[in-house]
Amino acid sequence: MSRDTVIIVAGGEGRRLGGPLPKQFLPLGEVPVLWHTLLAFHRYDPSLQIILVLHPDWTGHWQKVSRALQPPIDYQITTGGETRFHSVANGLALAEDGGLTAVHDASRPLVSRELLERTFTAAREKGNAVPATAVHDSLREVTDDGNRPVDRSRYRSIQTPQIFPTRLLKEAFRQPYDPAFTDEATVVERLGEKIHLVEGEKRNIKITATFDLKVAEMILHSDPE
Amino acid sequence: MSRDTVIIVAGGEGRRLGGPLPKQFLPLGEVPVLWHTLLAFHRYDPSLQIILVLHPDWTGHWQKVSRALQPPIDYQITTGGETRFHSVANGLALAEDGGLTAVHDASRPLVSRELLERTFTAAREKGNAVPATAVHDSLREVTDDGNRPVDRSRYRSIQTPQIFPTRLLKEAFRQPYDPAFTDEATVVERLGEKIHLVEGEKRNIKITATFDLKVAEMILHSDPE
Repeated sequence: MSRDTVIIVAGGEGRRLGGPLPKQFLPLGEVPVLWHTLLAFHRYDPSLQIILVLHPDWTGHWQKVSRALQPPIDYQITTGGETRFHSVANGLALAEDGGLTAVHDASRPLVSRELLERTFTAAREKGNAVPATAVHDSLREVTDDGNRPVDRSRYRSIQTPQIFPTRLLKEAFRQPYDPAFTDEATVVERLGEKIHLVEGEKRNIKITATFDLKVAEMILHSDPE
Repeated sequence: MSRDTVIIVAGGEGRRLGGPLPKQFLPLGEVPVLWHTLLAFHRYDPSLQIILVLHPDWTGHWQKVSRALQPPIDYQITTGGETRFHSVANGLALAEDGGLTAVHDASRPLVSRELLERTFTAAREKGNAVPATAVHDSLREVTDDGNRPVDRSRYRSIQTPQIFPTRLLKEAFRQPYDPAFTDEATVVERLGEKIHLVEGEKRNIKITATFDLKVAEMILHSDPE
């Protein structure tokens, strides 16, 4: 049986002169955010093919800081492209055929084993799977002349990993780039596929600001898994 | 000059046999969530008229536990109705005319002085003000036969306090109840008013689950204001 693949995407952010270190390289607990992300997948399934997509500006940095990290994890590194679409396409070029491919944000280090189990299982059974959570705050849509209320119960917040058969994902990523391709679901959908949502989880936060890093520290402290 | 009013809404949740204590009565740091909420407005403007709307099942509980809390805060209590609309209407019955009325969720205890300043100032200048934040996760809309991607950059997460001239808010709440009235903005909008959004903030979280209470503890610890 073919093994499954995960593409961990950290390809977007280049090195800006004097700019802050992208959040995925900052420490969370004792190791960088990105190491937690790699570990979550490695621990879930040690046979998983792990492909890390890094912006070329950060490859050297990561190779240096990750050298001493434990336990050893077997993964491949490739470089990111102009957009997330191009970064995932670069990762897919290395993906082994025949299994499922999960695409996951490097900045979501706290994804639980349960969510991985649920999403991989659903993808196997339903053809694909994308984790989603209810929207808790009221929502408004910005319009040309102001804004209007929308019914939040009709909306879902989308997380990763987004999981698809590898062959299908490769076919989808052969389509020409479209700015409407904001995640993998939107790319696969363009082929006429329906997206299957599974229940996401609060701990699977995306770390984009210092605030989120503090929330992540809290989660790690109170529920380390 | 007339003073402004805040209506703090905790009217929705009745006492369920064996059910958990509603989150606004749970301790956050050393005092209940709701005490933080009252304090935030009291400290912002000690002359503010503060009206607390409580579900009748919890009035006795709150009066007992709040008796010893410091510093003393002058506020009125009224009882909640069937929905948030009815609870706010009950609060409005006590509001003094002539100033602004803010409506705020009891379960948002960590609203900052800066956000209160910004929202009251904008309401005074623009006619009303509602805090809103960008949506950071991808969004999907659930449809009759599945779900579809929507452009998250067109959406805003809505917070409280929502602030309006007291006379306008009273007029709006004389309209017959409609289930589409999910917050105060939707009620005022029905009169033909445009809603003015101001920048919200991450720390102004709504505590609806144990997870949120832990996030709130983290915020309180790292940035107590």
